[in-house]
Amino acid sequence: MKRIVLLRHGESPWNQENRFTGWTDVDLSEKGISEACKAGDTLKQACFTFQIAYTSYLKRAVKTLNCVLDRMNEDWIPVEKTWRLNEKHYGMLQGLNKSETAAKYGDEQVHIWRRSYDVAPDPVAVDDPRIPGKDPRYACIPDAEVPRTESLKDAIRRVMPYWECVIFPSLKKVDSVLVTAHGNSLRGIVKHLKGISDEDISQLNLPTAVPYVFEFDHQLNLEKDYFLGDPKEIEKLMEAVARQGSAKK
Amino acid sequence: MKRIVLLRHGESPWNQENRFTGWTDVDLSEKGISEACKAGDTLKQACFTFQIAYTSYLKRAVKTLNCVLDRMNEDWIPVEKTWRLNEKHYGMLQGLNKSETAAKYGDEQVHIWRRSYDVAPDPVAVDDPRIPGKDPRYACIPDAEVPRTESLKDAIRRVMPYWECVIFPSLKKVDSVLVTAHGNSLRGIVKHLKGISDEDISQLNLPTAVPYVFEFDHQLNLEKDYFLGDPKEIEKLMEAVARQGSAKK
Repeated sequence: MKRIVLLRHGESPWNQENRFTGWTDVDLSEKGISEACKAGDTLKQACFTFQIAYTSYLKRAVKTLNCVLDRMNEDWIPVEKTWRLNEKHYGMLQGLNKSETAAKYGDEQVHIWRRSYDVAPDPVAVDDPRIPGKDPRYACIPDAEVPRTESLKDAIRRVMPYWECVIFPSLKKVDSVLVTAHGNSLRGIVKHLKGISDEDISQLNLPTAVPYVFEFDHQLNLEKDYFLGDPKEIEKLMEAVARQGSAKK
Repeated sequence: MKRIVLLRHGESPWNQENRFTGWTDVDLSEKGISEACKAGDTLKQACFTFQIAYTSYLKRAVKTLNCVLDRMNEDWIPVEKTWRLNEKHYGMLQGLNKSETAAKYGDEQVHIWRRSYDVAPDPVAVDDPRIPGKDPRYACIPDAEVPRTESLKDAIRRVMPYWECVIFPSLKKVDSVLVTAHGNSLRGIVKHLKGISDEDISQLNLPTAVPYVFEFDHQLNLEKDYFLGDPKEIEKLMEAVARQGSAKK
């Protein structure tokens, strides 16, 4: 049996403040670090081990991974980092409070920006400090591909080549792979693995720092998928994520 | 200008307890984490940036690196891990208290084991849990090369191929490289870079978590080397390391 575990990073202060984060390199909160450590403990107690791990370029995903591997005493395994697993770029919404934005533009518009498949928020300007092109970590991306905003569709389009060429083929060599990333980049992977439609994928609300396990047979056919942890607790976490776009939160 | 920064990991509880650690995968102490964070702050204040980092397979070196990169906001850079940067394997001394060992065998024997160039402690037995061959992380090492003990000479002999084939050539592609490792694996690199003799290298007492900077011209000739930090504080730290083998500590 082979498996890939997907893990959304733990909470950041901007999650607490209900702000659009996207490619902003926000740290984990204290709660986020606890969540990540708990995920590591859960995986260890369930006797999971990993031979390789992948993460985005963003601190909150890298640190979630570091905490998990530390708790599992697997600090030593190879880790590959890539901008392709980054969160969706939220354009000019990055840094804004979600509730304030909802109060200004209406719940519906915010819901469209957060949940539609192919509508991207307005892009940041070319001279905006929020444009990733000025950050040395993104020097490797061809200029034309550096995003100034992304729809979910755009984000998934740059995640999938890495999934297909790097992450999934690694299961041919090893048995167990860990991916720490973000709500929207992980939506792309889950959409692909489970054949979820463009319309339905935005309804998938992954809880933070709960291991989502995909098991494959030796021909790499998906056999089953499940969250590791207490089902009631996980349901509550997913509902909390779904509520984040509302002005009334 | 190109540079490589060598960094010995922060303090572990076994450093505090004055025990031989070697390949035992001991964690950092609270003080060790603070030391690592301070090293990151020092590097950041001095405007260092890194494009790639190398570390051993041992938790105390990986976590030191994670802390440094976090403080520098360079969590995203590629990190390569290798058993070849591990500490010297201390054979049957691993786990023993240095002062007790000194009281039992005499300061001179302990000094020989710790400081001679080519005398290794007695090896651990083939069925000893301290043998690394049973740990999956070392499955990649050919059986004949899995150490059951090492002299400083042995340790340096397995560090140098990695230095010559991987770490040093990376300076052809990038400008700034960070290596977090251990007292004895780093001795090997410093010995090579500064042409230190077999006799003198054991006198080099690297302080924990103090960045040791090597600057090269564009033809990769060594131009200068220095510790980054307060010289008086660094001298004190080096003296403390030198005293560790004595029964009177």
